[in-house]
Amino acid sequence: MTRYRVAVHVVPRRGLLDPQGKAVADALHTLGFAGVASVHVGRHLVLEIDAHSESDAREQTSNMCGRLLANPVTEDFEIASVSAV
Amino acid sequence: MTRYRVAVHVVPRRGLLDPQGKAVADALHTLGFAGVASVHVGRHLVLEIDAHSESDAREQTSNMCGRLLANPVTEDFEIASVSAV
Repeated sequence: MTRYRVAVHVVPRRGLLDPQGKAVADALHTLGFAGVASVHVGRHLVLEIDAHSESDAREQTSNMCGRLLANPVTEDFEIASVSAV
Repeated sequence: MTRYRVAVHVVPRRGLLDPQGKAVADALHTLGFAGVASVHVGRHLVLEIDAHSESDAREQTSNMCGRLLANPVTEDFEIASVSAV
């Protein structure tokens, strides 16, 4: 077993409303950041997992996203990186 | 002016308690994912910004993180990528 560090991005599905992103964009405009066109807010998760291989770590992470970490109705997830610790 | 897409990670500062990460790790153990050693939960922000150059986009984003997007007491931020749209 090797320990892997896996980074995952969970983001609101494209085309769905993102009220948190809208609120942040409005707040940035109020602060004077006029160049901000849009903001999307998601989650950045870093997991440390004991797994047999990099592909095993990837598969475990996909399962975790499907069962707990991401809402399958409103969110998409992407495994950003997997590296042995 | 060019439009840039900037991805930012805002994460709890190392060494500080991360109760949300702890709760997610406990929930994953309960679901049977025994190989999970730790979880850290942060925010993944994607901003679209009109800026004069890539370094201008980077600087604007740093200012936004300092003033609104990250809590300077408990969080660190990292600009993960900057690309012209």
